[in-house]
Amino acid sequence: MKILVINAGSSSLKYQLYDMSNESVLASGRVERIGMDSSIVTHEPIGKPEVRHVSEILDHVTAVKRVTDMLLHPEFGAIRKLTEIEAVGHRVVHGGEAFSSSVLVTPEVKLEIRRLFDLAPLHNPAHMMGITAVETNMPDVPQAVVFDTAFHQTMPNTSYLYPIPTVLYRRHKIRRYGFHGTSHSYVSAQAAAYLQKPLESLKMISCHIGNGASCAAILDGKSFDTSMGMTPLEGLMMGTRSGDLDPAIVPFVMNKEELTLNEVNSMLNKHSGMLAISGISSDMREVTEAMNDGDKNAKLAFDMYTYRVKKYIGAYAAAMNGLDTLVFTAGVGENSAALRKAVCEGITFLGIELDEKRNSERSKDARQISTDNSRIKVLVVPTNEELLIARDTYNLVKQSEIS
Amino acid sequence: MKILVINAGSSSLKYQLYDMSNESVLASGRVERIGMDSSIVTHEPIGKPEVRHVSEILDHVTAVKRVTDMLLHPEFGAIRKLTEIEAVGHRVVHGGEAFSSSVLVTPEVKLEIRRLFDLAPLHNPAHMMGITAVETNMPDVPQAVVFDTAFHQTMPNTSYLYPIPTVLYRRHKIRRYGFHGTSHSYVSAQAAAYLQKPLESLKMISCHIGNGASCAAILDGKSFDTSMGMTPLEGLMMGTRSGDLDPAIVPFVMNKEELTLNEVNSMLNKHSGMLAISGISSDMREVTEAMNDGDKNAKLAFDMYTYRVKKYIGAYAAAMNGLDTLVFTAGVGENSAALRKAVCEGITFLGIELDEKRNSERSKDARQISTDNSRIKVLVVPTNEELLIARDTYNLVKQSEIS
Repeated sequence: MKILVINAGSSSLKYQLYDMSNESVLASGRVERIGMDSSIVTHEPIGKPEVRHVSEILDHVTAVKRVTDMLLHPEFGAIRKLTEIEAVGHRVVHGGEAFSSSVLVTPEVKLEIRRLFDLAPLHNPAHMMGITAVETNMPDVPQAVVFDTAFHQTMPNTSYLYPIPTVLYRRHKIRRYGFHGTSHSYVSAQAAAYLQKPLESLKMISCHIGNGASCAAILDGKSFDTSMGMTPLEGLMMGTRSGDLDPAIVPFVMNKEELTLNEVNSMLNKHSGMLAISGISSDMREVTEAMNDGDKNAKLAFDMYTYRVKKYIGAYAAAMNGLDTLVFTAGVGENSAALRKAVCEGITFLGIELDEKRNSERSKDARQISTDNSRIKVLVVPTNEELLIARDTYNLVKQSEIS
Repeated sequence: MKILVINAGSSSLKYQLYDMSNESVLASGRVERIGMDSSIVTHEPIGKPEVRHVSEILDHVTAVKRVTDMLLHPEFGAIRKLTEIEAVGHRVVHGGEAFSSSVLVTPEVKLEIRRLFDLAPLHNPAHMMGITAVETNMPDVPQAVVFDTAFHQTMPNTSYLYPIPTVLYRRHKIRRYGFHGTSHSYVSAQAAAYLQKPLESLKMISCHIGNGASCAAILDGKSFDTSMGMTPLEGLMMGTRSGDLDPAIVPFVMNKEELTLNEVNSMLNKHSGMLAISGISSDMREVTEAMNDGDKNAKLAFDMYTYRVKKYIGAYAAAMNGLDTLVFTAGVGENSAALRKAVCEGITFLGIELDEKRNSERSKDARQISTDNSRIKVLVVPTNEELLIARDTYNLVKQSEIS
């Protein structure tokens, strides 16, 4: 079975075509600047050079058409007929309390995703455009949706409720949802497999550290707590997001700088974090480089960033009353040996002993970077959210065929 | 030397008269409803029954006059002439970055306290009224100010800076200040004395848990990090304050509920925390009682509250890469055996072993509640901010007499 995985943004659409017989990627790519002048399609067929095509793509329906055109292209394509694509899986950021697992798209599911527009105004409407665009282009193909929030629906109410008037939860569903769930779910299962232990037997913290970043406490194989909250703003310091903050700073800044609600949101989500402190970049590679060249603000940004990761690891070890497995994943987590070293060497009291040589090596496979004697196993596990979306979609379609 | 300690609020004024020869309290009391109809003076002379007096007290000048009248009263008083009061010490909530220790009041000091009105609009103006009122009533008496923030001025910038645009720190001094510093300072010194170890040798977390609540990580005898932030809103869940929150909730709620900046501040500071979740009370005693009677919301409030204390202890242990002394203080910390038990039994992995019998005993003295074998020593240390204010005032006046 071939499955197309789609991650639709408001002006972009990323895709991967999977052959599920061996879970291999046949082609991938992205459409950028949808609805703007000169949209760009970048198509990457496996084993062939990348193809870039600039044209006007006014909406998501046309974007999906261009993607299928590429996939069907006699030279760069990966399939001969559109019907070879037997299912489409979508990433959806917010599943609210309605979805604790992936589901096939139905009219009811679409209604629920629409109901959640309020909670994820930047993401869910775009995902919906992606789903509708696939319906228009491939009306008979089953679609599945895989939610960033679903894995965290197992959190106990002591983790997910905020200590604010309960009417706000009842009326507006204000609570912790957590994000990166697909990634935390994927890497926690991979980590357990690597260690050859049942996931349920491990007290694990997974650190998904990319441009966005979150930690998850995973107990009995389930998400027990996570650092992102009602929105992806809470928690760790990130590339451009502040993470945790005295909530009183928000009205204070709005008053002092005469900011609107949108402006303060934009400030905290797009102009804060590593970018704000380093004054250089939101990218850990550039910040680390500048730090190594002696830049003090870069060093401060790096130190604040790693300090906050350490505090979350300590907090979640306390939340679970113990820790035996610590996992790093995503862009920064997988590639920044400097970050992992700064974090791990700052919390040796927990029983972490980093193997510096292992930590400095690079690999595309899951690997251990703690010493063999380290009480807590520290792993680097490459995340693969697209593969998990493809797998969930495959399983849902297979199940529906049986029943 | 007799020293009057004053804690002036906007409509209240608390006082204690100390005899510093033996650090004993000669009298204490409070004036309430200043500026409202029927103000109340409650005076508690040591060894004599409490005296209550209702009258009209329009301002702080009159309030201080009533206090000195009480102290001079032939029957309930504690002194015969006003000149017996040789110094006055004031609690001041916010010392900003200007004050890292207590100081004698000078015109420059008053100017600085005024400059900080912006950062502590509810507190510093009231403290200033107290200082001015004492000047008016006792023009020749030296005054000292003891700041809630001063102890935390040793925090490194990785602890005190927020990952937001740096212009906000430069322009408005938005950073973590921390509060309860007088208490954290006092109990950490008391704890070290109890353990007969140099404070500098200990990795300590002090949990000041009253109606307001904060944790402090104390390393090398200095504040290294603390949970309250720019304002006392950040950090632990409290009686009526939310503590930590996804910052994006603030603009979200303002939009949904059409709240002003003042209204959202009031919601988070006065209508959240334990009160909001329990639906019963902001008072731990009442919440615990209801929980023991089977009230589910009270149980949830208690569990959320203790969960957040545990997470901070874990976070600060990670911040210091270790922990050897854990201290509970203030109203709830000193008196709620249930809270201490829930916290300590949830983080045994750190090397904490609670002695249930010791924990359930009551005492007015510092005491150990961990077992003798517990790697981490857990202490209950009664706080005494007024005594520390009296001591600092005494020392500053003595020094100025010498120099």
